[in-house]
Amino acid sequence: MEEGRKINVGILGATGTVGQRFITLLSVHPWFVIHALGASPRSAGKPYASAVNWKQATPIPSAVKTVVVRECKPEHFADCAIIFSGLDADAAGDIEAAFRGAELAVFSNAKNYRRDPNVPLIVPLVNPGHLSIIPQQQALHSPPLSKGFIVTNANCSTTGIVIPLAALEKAFGPLELLLVTTMQAISGAGYPGVASLDIMDNIVPHIGGEEEKIEWETLKILGGVQEDDQGAKSFDMHANHPLRVSAACNRVPVIDGHTECVSVRFARRPPPSPQQVREALAAFTPDAKALGCPSAPRHTITVHEEPDRPQPRLDRYYQDGAGVSVGRVRQCPVLDIKFVVLSNNVSIGAATSSIINAELAVLKGVVAA
Amino acid sequence: MEEGRKINVGILGATGTVGQRFITLLSVHPWFVIHALGASPRSAGKPYASAVNWKQATPIPSAVKTVVVRECKPEHFADCAIIFSGLDADAAGDIEAAFRGAELAVFSNAKNYRRDPNVPLIVPLVNPGHLSIIPQQQALHSPPLSKGFIVTNANCSTTGIVIPLAALEKAFGPLELLLVTTMQAISGAGYPGVASLDIMDNIVPHIGGEEEKIEWETLKILGGVQEDDQGAKSFDMHANHPLRVSAACNRVPVIDGHTECVSVRFARRPPPSPQQVREALAAFTPDAKALGCPSAPRHTITVHEEPDRPQPRLDRYYQDGAGVSVGRVRQCPVLDIKFVVLSNNVSIGAATSSIINAELAVLKGVVAA
Amino acid sequence: MEEGRKINVGILGATGTVGQRFITLLSVHPWFVIHALGASPRSAGKPYASAVNWKQATPIPSAVKTVVVRECKPEHFADCAIIFSGLDADAAGDIEAAFRGAELAVFSNAKNYRRDPNVPLIVPLVNPGHLSIIPQQQALHSPPLSKGFIVTNANCSTTGIVIPLAALEKAFGPLELLLVTTMQAISGAGYPGVASLDIMDNIVPHIGGEEEKIEWETLKILGGVQEDDQGAKSFDMHANHPLRVSAACNRVPVIDGHTECVSVRFARRPPPSPQQVREALAAFTPDAKALGCPSAPRHTITVHEEPDRPQPRLDRYYQDGAGVSVGRVRQCPVLDIKFVVLSNNVSIGAATSSIINAELAVLKGVVAA
Amino acid sequence: MEEGRKINVGILGATGTVGQRFITLLSVHPWFVIHALGASPRSAGKPYASAVNWKQATPIPSAVKTVVVRECKPEHFADCAIIFSGLDADAAGDIEAAFRGAELAVFSNAKNYRRDPNVPLIVPLVNPGHLSIIPQQQALHSPPLSKGFIVTNANCSTTGIVIPLAALEKAFGPLELLLVTTMQAISGAGYPGVASLDIMDNIVPHIGGEEEKIEWETLKILGGVQEDDQGAKSFDMHANHPLRVSAACNRVPVIDGHTECVSVRFARRPPPSPQQVREALAAFTPDAKALGCPSAPRHTITVHEEPDRPQPRLDRYYQDGAGVSVGRVRQCPVLDIKFVVLSNNVSIGAATSSIINAELAVLKGVVAA
Repeated sequence: MEEGRKINVGILGATGTVGQRFITLLSVHPWFVIHALGASPRSAGKPYASAVNWKQATPIPSAVKTVVVRECKPEHFADCAIIFSGLDADAAGDIEAAFRGAELAVFSNAKNYRRDPNVPLIVPLVNPGHLSIIPQQQALHSPPLSKGFIVTNANCSTTGIVIPLAALEKAFGPLELLLVTTMQAISGAGYPGVASLDIMDNIVPHIGGEEEKIEWETLKILGGVQEDDQGAKSFDMHANHPLRVSAACNRVPVIDGHTECVSVRFARRPPPSPQQVREALAAFTPDAKALGCPSAPRHTITVHEEPDRPQPRLDRYYQDGAGVSVGRVRQCPVLDIKFVVLSNNVSIGAATSSIINAELAVLKGVVAA
Repeated sequence: MEEGRKINVGILGATGTVGQRFITLLSVHPWFVIHALGASPRSAGKPYASAVNWKQATPIPSAVKTVVVRECKPEHFADCAIIFSGLDADAAGDIEAAFRGAELAVFSNAKNYRRDPNVPLIVPLVNPGHLSIIPQQQALHSPPLSKGFIVTNANCSTTGIVIPLAALEKAFGPLELLLVTTMQAISGAGYPGVASLDIMDNIVPHIGGEEEKIEWETLKILGGVQEDDQGAKSFDMHANHPLRVSAACNRVPVIDGHTECVSVRFARRPPPSPQQVREALAAFTPDAKALGCPSAPRHTITVHEEPDRPQPRLDRYYQDGAGVSVGRVRQCPVLDIKFVVLSNNVSIGAATSSIINAELAVLKGVVAA
Repeated sequence: MEEGRKINVGILGATGTVGQRFITLLSVHPWFVIHALGASPRSAGKPYASAVNWKQATPIPSAVKTVVVRECKPEHFADCAIIFSGLDADAAGDIEAAFRGAELAVFSNAKNYRRDPNVPLIVPLVNPGHLSIIPQQQALHSPPLSKGFIVTNANCSTTGIVIPLAALEKAFGPLELLLVTTMQAISGAGYPGVASLDIMDNIVPHIGGEEEKIEWETLKILGGVQEDDQGAKSFDMHANHPLRVSAACNRVPVIDGHTECVSVRFARRPPPSPQQVREALAAFTPDAKALGCPSAPRHTITVHEEPDRPQPRLDRYYQDGAGVSVGRVRQCPVLDIKFVVLSNNVSIGAATSSIINAELAVLKGVVAA
Repeated sequence: MEEGRKINVGILGATGTVGQRFITLLSVHPWFVIHALGASPRSAGKPYASAVNWKQATPIPSAVKTVVVRECKPEHFADCAIIFSGLDADAAGDIEAAFRGAELAVFSNAKNYRRDPNVPLIVPLVNPGHLSIIPQQQALHSPPLSKGFIVTNANCSTTGIVIPLAALEKAFGPLELLLVTTMQAISGAGYPGVASLDIMDNIVPHIGGEEEKIEWETLKILGGVQEDDQGAKSFDMHANHPLRVSAACNRVPVIDGHTECVSVRFARRPPPSPQQVREALAAFTPDAKALGCPSAPRHTITVHEEPDRPQPRLDRYYQDGAGVSVGRVRQCPVLDIKFVVLSNNVSIGAATSSIINAELAVLKGVVAA
């Protein structure tokens, strides 16, 4: 990035939970300048402060209070080099496609295109290399595109675990088995989201589609990009070393921060010891940091020695929510190693990942900034 | 039981959380009559209503309000045919031994004697046959005993899972692997127990000694009693078919009711289908019911078809807390089958189990009633 | 009531929160038999168990599981002598009017007709005498009615305080000033009601329209019925002794049970002492009890001596939720006396009051049973 | 303050809840440097990171991790110009007296000396003028002191309301009546403090001694300092215009942030309108700000126009917890005006007030810095 260079960005779904988080983070971003806000026709035409039901613990950034909200149509965002989408899944499909078709670079938090064979599903601290699929995405579009594309980030509960799992595969080779039980915060369901009568003094042992997301997305993210004889690229879904994943997802009465109990089996025998695992996790440095992404955490994974950590209330703000906390690394009598992961679902699990993805795309020249 | 026969019982640790639950349940019991209450010297000599910091949602039963609390010494409980102990582990060791030595039948909720090779660890809906060790316990005591003994019930989180697991082993033969992640209610820690600052808007992914209890107790309970050539009995710890157990225990902000996510692998190939598992769970009828224990649940395991059950707030009072709720029975991509168990930790997980154990002992003639 | 006589009742809004509570209570009622269930067109035609999203801690009563839900039209409820309405305010206005017009006796939990000058607003433990307005309500209807009428019960937070206030006025004469701050449970907002993100680790110091309800309804309920020279009856709104009421309403993270901090000033000088107030509250016996209403609490007001009671979790089930708990009766340095009231908003604050109102109407011959 | 001047400070009770807050705030203070930490003999001799059970959402400041904790004896703190005391009341009495006697300037958060007629009870945004009693406190000490003294800050629930009340008295003259109902966070009780079984899904309508503190401290703080003919100073307890205060205190399941519902009556007739009150609150600028205290909030009172604010979760971090949020300013049918106050009990309600008090004492030359 050229010194002092500023890049205009737009935010779709700006009044929603993820949109509010985008605004909070981008209002102090060193490169990106909030240029346009999009929301539903009901909100369009109003100043942002009137349109939004603001639910963050910090006030609405003064720079956006009087910004007039627009409808989510590409022509209203033509001046934006980057579009962040916090749209709900029911709106994201058509709108994100329209923006891409209008040659805009879309970084989406929605699930709609995560399984698209030409759309990268990127956890920026894990698989930035998947950006290499974008030229193919653009070439196969009708008509072919030169600047427009879609990049998605992962589901929040997937994001939390693939970061330490990537560190383990980097250090010890492929994983074979993964069993994870999640305890997910209510903020993961948006607003109004979970009814208080459903979750106070309660656990809901089911989140629609969540287990399937973890079991599928993990393979796409931890897998590589393969190229056939004709030069066609595809995601290999960890096929070189088949990985079986089993997830059990629970909603718990926690506001922010997903806690996940993980057990893994490595392909390599004997497996690493708990101490080796701790060291590998603590030493993990993702490319995004090396490349100079300003929103990448200074330190990615903190490994707790205390027996009762990580805990969401104490650890969710680690590295402003961009880092991941791991604790209780110990042997698993059934698989090899078990441990606990805590990640901030509204930060690294959502908006922060999208923003680092955009930073990566700028640094790699994928976005014409 | 002879019609109308009444049996005097004493309660140790009567002012504590488990003691309060014993009193609530026993005050309406068809056979047992609360005859004596024991607590710490600080409480001794006071009427129960003055000594206790009552925390139940139902009032103190009027029959015990004015009962004068005694010190936990056997001579004050000589008239009791049965002693229920809700003592904390730091007091239970010596006091329960003294009561047994004074020829009293002790049904303990404490952990102290669970690993004793001559003390049965009984979940009454699972392994009442382990009462057969008692003559050996009495014979090996110095001096030998004719009426005194100790029976323990299991840790609350163990109890919740061994009931459905016993149903599965009964139907499909031995289990080989068990991986369980618990989400345990605060009431499991007694009073004052968990500080509110530690658990509100939080998860604590550690409960001291709990994982070890599940991993060990499950083997003792699901295993059998073997006899060597000299007629010496011992617990076989599921040795015929080795079972590996891995537990990850979490404290969650739920008042009552432990939720546990379970994955199992069966020895038999192919394993049963989810539908077969559902049917076997729903059909399970423990001996305690057949024998006529008045506190055994009418129906032991309810199997939910709804995708989001069981939930502690909605299901913990099933069968007055004596039954167990299971849901989300489905295939596990890593082991064979996974499901969710909900059990009431203060009822079947604690006092109710002790009471059914005593009922079993009466019906089997182990207690001289 | 003639021995063994059974009365058919219908429930409108049967799938909602209040409707579920009506069903739970009426399924074991000694007089009333659930005959018909009404809900929105979306639910009509389905068996109740399929139509409802059941949220009670006790299972759906088996007697109603297969009852086919009907649309809320009077012709589907012609066989019912009594209609209980748990409808939301946006539907209740027209539907309840139509049912009354079809000569049905409607006991409503909705706010729509509470301010109607010919509709009694009855807290059954306080002002059953207001039923005397019904003949005028029927006569003024166009066309005049012989059996149809509407009786409403009060807002839940009003109900909790008027019961002890009625006891105080009965013992010590009129009140002059009332200042109340409420801490209201989430169940008062129905389902889905309060979003968990709005109330976990939080207080919302505002409930729309609630303060106005308390400030107005209290006057109608504690006031009398006056008759002018032409025999026209009207509610006097406590006009003989003007009473000024100030309410501050808060939503708190409690599932069931409204806690209210009350300060009052009496007209009489000197005012009663705290001890006299305690005695008057404990001695209060409402007419509904004397008349033999089966759902009236055995004891209406329990007065706690402990310094830290009442508490919602410990006291909301007092008298199955039909009684009221008062504690901390002490002098108020600004007015005369202050105390804390705890009432079960889903029981005496809603369905239970409607049911006792219907019992009163049967006993007084207002309903032709 | 001279440019770049640094002042050594010591913290007593450094491992407790208030002590942890002192450390968090002072580790980034522009003037004060943490020089010594004091705690119980059990902790003395250990590095701070080993001695403390850290419960803050931000990590232990690296500067104090290895500081060796000392016993709370004055000789270990001789190099400190200022002592902050976060001691519990049972220890604070003797220790703070000993430190004062050793010529140390003690800023205490404990209640022990608040009622001492020669100790100022200072809410720094309200009554910094009360520091003028210190020479008398020193002169009356035996032996007389030249540098040692004690300054206390107020109880957290008192602090929250006296700030807006001071603004009102400044604008509209004396208050006559004050009725306040509090909803106080669990962190106000320290750690372990409130048991989770006592507060989850619950309200406790009693906090020992709290109502008396509000009713008494408010008078000392809002009152002035009078001088008799012999030059003896004393606190006038608002005697010029008698003020009657009535408080009802509740513990609620909120982690941080006290919410208080306030009704007031002014001496002046007619009273100010709600709009005048809003303007006076928003315009309030305390002397501490004008004098240049670095920890004083940039803006003291924010006045919300939204009907449902302030809320603890959204507003407790206003001005880093040093400001106060007021909302729902409206007429009170019983007194004159009612409104809601939200203050951060662990910041302005505790450590932040002590720190600003010390800043004031430095700026006014009371501390020889």
